[in-house]
Amino acid sequence: MHIDELATPAALIEDARLARNIARMQSRMDELGVRFRPHVKTSKCVEVARRQLAAGARGITVSTLKEAEQFFQAGFEDILYAVSLAPQKVAPALDLRRRGCELQLVVDSMAAARALTELALKDPVPEPVPVLIEVDVDGHRGGVAPGSALLLDIGRHLHEQGLALRGVMAHAGSSYDQRTPTQLQDIAEQERAQAVQAAGRLREAGLPCPVVSIGSTPTALSAGQLPGVTEVRAGVYVFFDLVMAGVGVCSDEDIALSVLTTVIGHQVERGWVLVDAGWMAMSRDRGTQAQPVDQGYGLVCGLDGRLLDGFLMHAANQEHGIVARRDGQAPIDIEQRFPVGSKLRVLPNHACATGAQHADYAWVDGPEVRALWPRFGGW
Amino acid sequence: MHIDELATPAALIEDARLARNIARMQSRMDELGVRFRPHVKTSKCVEVARRQLAAGARGITVSTLKEAEQFFQAGFEDILYAVSLAPQKVAPALDLRRRGCELQLVVDSMAAARALTELALKDPVPEPVPVLIEVDVDGHRGGVAPGSALLLDIGRHLHEQGLALRGVMAHAGSSYDQRTPTQLQDIAEQERAQAVQAAGRLREAGLPCPVVSIGSTPTALSAGQLPGVTEVRAGVYVFFDLVMAGVGVCSDEDIALSVLTTVIGHQVERGWVLVDAGWMAMSRDRGTQAQPVDQGYGLVCGLDGRLLDGFLMHAANQEHGIVARRDGQAPIDIEQRFPVGSKLRVLPNHACATGAQHADYAWVDGPEVRALWPRFGGW
Repeated sequence: MHIDELATPAALIEDARLARNIARMQSRMDELGVRFRPHVKTSKCVEVARRQLAAGARGITVSTLKEAEQFFQAGFEDILYAVSLAPQKVAPALDLRRRGCELQLVVDSMAAARALTELALKDPVPEPVPVLIEVDVDGHRGGVAPGSALLLDIGRHLHEQGLALRGVMAHAGSSYDQRTPTQLQDIAEQERAQAVQAAGRLREAGLPCPVVSIGSTPTALSAGQLPGVTEVRAGVYVFFDLVMAGVGVCSDEDIALSVLTTVIGHQVERGWVLVDAGWMAMSRDRGTQAQPVDQGYGLVCGLDGRLLDGFLMHAANQEHGIVARRDGQAPIDIEQRFPVGSKLRVLPNHACATGAQHADYAWVDGPEVRALWPRFGGW
Repeated sequence: MHIDELATPAALIEDARLARNIARMQSRMDELGVRFRPHVKTSKCVEVARRQLAAGARGITVSTLKEAEQFFQAGFEDILYAVSLAPQKVAPALDLRRRGCELQLVVDSMAAARALTELALKDPVPEPVPVLIEVDVDGHRGGVAPGSALLLDIGRHLHEQGLALRGVMAHAGSSYDQRTPTQLQDIAEQERAQAVQAAGRLREAGLPCPVVSIGSTPTALSAGQLPGVTEVRAGVYVFFDLVMAGVGVCSDEDIALSVLTTVIGHQVERGWVLVDAGWMAMSRDRGTQAQPVDQGYGLVCGLDGRLLDGFLMHAANQEHGIVARRDGQAPIDIEQRFPVGSKLRVLPNHACATGAQHADYAWVDGPEVRALWPRFGGW
């Protein structure tokens, strides 16, 4: 099928870019001597994750039990559920383990740890449940402080109750707010050092800690060395996006995900091209709004994937996008240059959010659609 | 089932509020003496639309052919596809008509009108295809100017080529940016007057124009009188949301859609409650950011649906929400007040965007879940 035959809007994955992004991260991880466990929350697509594993990744990271379930059904067994476990999710998580999934869990409070140990003791699974403790390395979200008494309390509780304490997990999400290589190296080192510090404290207390798992796309690509780290996780690198380009860890030409759209009208005097991809197709993510260069709802390319210099998706309604020049000029030839029925491609602010708006990806090699890859959503 | 048994995150529709919102709009339309054609892009849910029709609505409005297809399969026949038709969508639209769907189409350019008439002539359907011309009444999106020659050119072309020119359609989307009752009345009158002007010009030119269709939730609820208007459309009123509350056309207590979430942790010193609804469950919509009161990712309620004064979802990652006080204070009892495993409900910025993140709605009456209502997505 030719790309032009796809109904629009449609999410496209450009094969060459996908392959390059996967190879780049894996070779970086190989150089650093760490295990790489990609986060599949970005794609939620079995075909994409298979390519990550084929390149050398070992195991996957998920953000929901639905992801764990779907990937387990597709043959993936080594899965880290990297969100602190709600008590109500203990039973379905243990059920996945009972069915053979090597699911690892994460907690960052005594309440969650107790909910887990209580059910694991009451309704035992064949092997001790492997658990990581989430460590807060940058104050951006959850996790216990690496120097806290709570870290050791949780570790002791899990260990003494017979669970398999595996170690610590950290995610320096604030790396998304950095702008320079030096800042990125600093936050990568901060993520590493604090996770390693937490691991050291567990070991000094006589507790097992074989795993030190860290990562985010910006820190994974910026770390100079990773002594003490055993595993790195990253997700969005597989597609990259305009936010990552704004952070400086990729270029616009690395972005593998785009939204194919059809021109449906014009407002000639305003210089607007109306297209059939609105925020439903792009997502409401305006992640570049807080960056030095605001890319609107996305940068606009021709059907061949080449950027159209100066054009972005300036605004979006649910099923209407407004493409215009960044400088607000109204080119007189806009109806001729972008005729009704012609197609454009839009690079997204945030690949995780844009992907989530679509039920499948068209996997494309230049103008040829090689396959439709299903992706799933929900919880 | 009790609401507390639902897996989280989950989208809830509060029955009493849904019924009140539907009745309020329908009685307003009845008073104004116009036909009401609700926009089902907000709910994409057959059960919700059935209630709108049962209250007196006649026909529905859709934003995608997928919506037309899904609602037609569910027994809805009178459907207005209110987005200017892309040439590639003419064939599937005509196919729907051939199968018995009374689908009405919209164009706002000669290119779209020609694409439609060419295919309709080449591959005729049993009855002339009914078409509305989109009129631009506030410069916010598509449509032809009500005083333009283009309006008459499109009308003549459609009429002379044997299509059923039905009239004009307008949507004053800029009503979302208004803040005072006077501003809202003004934009409502502007929407009405310009649509009626366009209709008058078509009729003066000897062209048929039985339908004058206008509407948005803010203008529909603010119009004083609607002389010359035959039909009003509105969508988000069915659930309402924080953006509509900020515009001033509903109160927080009218918002029928909320997201149920479970507390998964705390950052006590920062006063943060971490919950399992992140932006994937809330959407990335930050529509109140541009309003005088920024509601973050949503206002927080207890499980009973009552607002917790001063708390909002301050930030969101993909599967983590951070609930905190608006004033930044860190209450010392946050772990006791919001224990791990307890549930909260979050009112969304934008119901259309939040609903779209979910595969179904739990239709609730107080603490009781009466049914799970499927909703669909995609194109």
